[in-house]
Amino acid sequence: MNGAYSLLTTLVDHGVEVCFANPGTSEMHFVAALDAVPRMRGVLTLFEGVATGAADGYARMTGTPAAVLLHLGPGLGNGLANLHNARRAHVPMVVVVGDHATYHKQYDAPLESDIDAVARTVSGWTRRTLDCGDIAVDAVDAVTASRAGIVSTLILPADVSWSDGEPAERSLRSDHVPDPFPPEVEQVAADEDAVRDAADVLNSGAPAVLLIGGDATRMPGLSAAARIAEATGARVLCETFPARLQRGAGVPAVERLAYFAEAAEEQLRGAEHLILAGAAAPVSFFAYPGRASSLVPPGCEVHTLAQHLGATAALEALADELTSDTRVRVAPSARPDMPTGHLTAFSAAAVIGALLPEGAVLVDESNTAGIGVASATAGAPAHDVLTLTGGAIGYGMPAAIGAAIAAPGRPVVSLQADGSAMYTVSALWTQARENLDVTTVIFANGAYDILRLELHRVGAANAEAPGPRALQLLDLGSPTIDFVKIAEGMGVPGRRVTTAEELADALSAAFAEPGPHLIEAVVPSLASSAV
Amino acid sequence: MNGAYSLLTTLVDHGVEVCFANPGTSEMHFVAALDAVPRMRGVLTLFEGVATGAADGYARMTGTPAAVLLHLGPGLGNGLANLHNARRAHVPMVVVVGDHATYHKQYDAPLESDIDAVARTVSGWTRRTLDCGDIAVDAVDAVTASRAGIVSTLILPADVSWSDGEPAERSLRSDHVPDPFPPEVEQVAADEDAVRDAADVLNSGAPAVLLIGGDATRMPGLSAAARIAEATGARVLCETFPARLQRGAGVPAVERLAYFAEAAEEQLRGAEHLILAGAAAPVSFFAYPGRASSLVPPGCEVHTLAQHLGATAALEALADELTSDTRVRVAPSARPDMPTGHLTAFSAAAVIGALLPEGAVLVDESNTAGIGVASATAGAPAHDVLTLTGGAIGYGMPAAIGAAIAAPGRPVVSLQADGSAMYTVSALWTQARENLDVTTVIFANGAYDILRLELHRVGAANAEAPGPRALQLLDLGSPTIDFVKIAEGMGVPGRRVTTAEELADALSAAFAEPGPHLIEAVVPSLASSAV
Repeated sequence: MNGAYSLLTTLVDHGVEVCFANPGTSEMHFVAALDAVPRMRGVLTLFEGVATGAADGYARMTGTPAAVLLHLGPGLGNGLANLHNARRAHVPMVVVVGDHATYHKQYDAPLESDIDAVARTVSGWTRRTLDCGDIAVDAVDAVTASRAGIVSTLILPADVSWSDGEPAERSLRSDHVPDPFPPEVEQVAADEDAVRDAADVLNSGAPAVLLIGGDATRMPGLSAAARIAEATGARVLCETFPARLQRGAGVPAVERLAYFAEAAEEQLRGAEHLILAGAAAPVSFFAYPGRASSLVPPGCEVHTLAQHLGATAALEALADELTSDTRVRVAPSARPDMPTGHLTAFSAAAVIGALLPEGAVLVDESNTAGIGVASATAGAPAHDVLTLTGGAIGYGMPAAIGAAIAAPGRPVVSLQADGSAMYTVSALWTQARENLDVTTVIFANGAYDILRLELHRVGAANAEAPGPRALQLLDLGSPTIDFVKIAEGMGVPGRRVTTAEELADALSAAFAEPGPHLIEAVVPSLASSAV
Repeated sequence: MNGAYSLLTTLVDHGVEVCFANPGTSEMHFVAALDAVPRMRGVLTLFEGVATGAADGYARMTGTPAAVLLHLGPGLGNGLANLHNARRAHVPMVVVVGDHATYHKQYDAPLESDIDAVARTVSGWTRRTLDCGDIAVDAVDAVTASRAGIVSTLILPADVSWSDGEPAERSLRSDHVPDPFPPEVEQVAADEDAVRDAADVLNSGAPAVLLIGGDATRMPGLSAAARIAEATGARVLCETFPARLQRGAGVPAVERLAYFAEAAEEQLRGAEHLILAGAAAPVSFFAYPGRASSLVPPGCEVHTLAQHLGATAALEALADELTSDTRVRVAPSARPDMPTGHLTAFSAAAVIGALLPEGAVLVDESNTAGIGVASATAGAPAHDVLTLTGGAIGYGMPAAIGAAIAAPGRPVVSLQADGSAMYTVSALWTQARENLDVTTVIFANGAYDILRLELHRVGAANAEAPGPRALQLLDLGSPTIDFVKIAEGMGVPGRRVTTAEELADALSAAFAEPGPHLIEAVVPSLASSAV
């Protein structure tokens, strides 16, 4: 068997069964080996950022790594933004970057570049396999390392891929037994001292906020946090951009920390203690002149209960320490009234809230335009929300691919801002090819609306109205982007809507028919009325 | 004045007058300053790889740097592939990467990443400005450094951008005088010893090949090379992927070294001396099992006459050393006969050759499908060809933007393979917004055709026919990509053609009407008939 076959066999033996790929010549043996290892599902993407974003979405829904296959340094570069988001989401992922043959690198061929340096900026584990005999061990190590919720990057020279080596089972350590279970992200036990410290703080009666994140944003962690709040009066907030937040009817509700620093400061005001369970200490997304970076209120004491892994275990231990009552208050079932008339960001959100199907996966990259979505869907049937963890836009449409493949029985609703949609728009083609049940709603306001707001918030346009040359760089309206045509051009049926009734019709039709759909929801800019 | 204004003023004072931008919050002061510095033309792109590719195309046509404005590490990542191509093209470019405020970095906000490490992999010069008072000096240094034909990257923290600092003219060194001329790539004088050595080799009568590249692929360098060939019988070849090759009627013709190693070995066979003038020693683009990486024939002696800068000067000195005859043989004017019937890669090339307008800039990323283009356009009116210097696909449509802005009076013809078109397809929107005179021809063969060939060439499918799961990863046909709809979705009129007559009609119409057009030329796969 050659190295590529050995790698594929080892990956599937260890629970990595999907590979999002955008291969080139140096990866051809990996591609050829797919026919010999049919347990590995190869999914073609037309751009590397789609592959990495898809693997992120997949990992968020399964807790297990997908593989990604990239072509040398430029391929890694194209995948980097969504690897950044994956790093911030603390998801497991195994990235295989094909490279020139070991003996070929010295010749500085046109595609030669420093892959290792770029990989290390996003990977918690990076290795270059230099001998075919090491490939199975390296693959196992990559998968194992990823369980800590990191991106593992294995750089695979072409000759290692094509050389004949030891069979995977022989080159592995003698005590190696293939893991029969998918390699889920590690569980970390609660730190008893940290639990006791948090319990003391909460029992003191001083105003406290419990900020949750990491693995605590699903049912068990949310339930534990809700018990703690009920028992102590502490307020619970969720990190601004959770990797995967369960919410909706029957799930304990949690408010997310606001994106805008002013609003987040308001949410945290008065807290004398801030207990972190899987979340980082709150910080402003960007710096603004004259404003603090840290959002911890002055004088507030910060306690770290748990890092992103083990937050649920720590919250459960803390809840048990504080109360024997295991009942939790959950969000009631409630749908917004169906709005009518011309669409706005808020009425669009209400339509989505009114129609969101049971068990949906809501991939949210609606940015400014999605301002009404959280409230409109709070009482919708239970669903998961995946958010833009790292702030690198172009994540949503790829992540929807991964979520749909990870959860084939669940409808994926991909909420997109028009600006961010254009970074990785070819994700639609893969959605069509794989016939994925993804309904994409483009909030089309014809602008980088967030930047119109930020232009003022950073003080760049405080003294005077922003000039036309500045505003032109934030405008997407000339020419108007026709997302229906773009979607149809990639095999996804599309429809443009301008009223709430049309959006309701289009969403109902999309939800009724499995497979990908795109709805361009034309909404007014929020910023243009505000500024 | 704030740092952003100081930076913009300094850049335009030193000849950098176009900025291809995809900004975010941390770049808002730069954007706001555009209204105060109207000499700087801001061009919005919807994806960073479009901005970097456009700056590459601009620099190839002008010899001067454009600026690029990117948003933190993920923005740089998205721009990286085309920065890789620019590095291989040895073009000047000034990349400004906005970063978090200096005091904000310690908080590890969501978009925090190691920008410097990524930048250094493609930049010949990288600096982080930490004080507003340094920004003018840093900007001058960035522009100056870029003259060596490198990418300069200036990392600009948001607070440096928004702080009030010294006026640019005061913070610059006291002896600083703004350069009244655009900062063209440096000229390097000929190395007399190298010239004499090459002259001796050529006068010896032993079979010699002169491999030209770098700055020698325009009229002066080509003329000098032609004189040398005429005087000595040496064969002249051009590097496989020149940054900018002048060719066509009235220009000395030069054959390019072939992409496929087998063909390149054939071209170099028999050479006892290889003289490099601006080109690197020839190397196989990829490694193939059982084949050599170096394409230098066994026993052939390699002589370096000049690096990429100064190749023209060295060739001129060498020509003068060898002959006083300054006449050169140029390509005669000749057009292919207009073909008819169903379109093939070759008949499409013939139509292009028959109709190519005077003074065209041919941006060539047609890859496998463009196999017939070089021969079909050899006698077309004089034109420039920009090629895929670094092998990172997704360069062509962005580079066409930069070429059109650099050479507003010249028609740009952008030849695209369907696979590579999808990496940076939003370039079409910027072409529409700026109303650029770019005619894009998509060679639509529904496959990564090059990889179908490479799958065999690397031996991944030698023993047996490639399996269906492997071939599916090279297939773009399900669903079919409709480039006409995609183009129309971004404001570019499109037309699909399947016969030579239709292509001729569509090209004639596009050339007759300024502004962007896209023609989807449906051609059969070359590989599917070959494999």
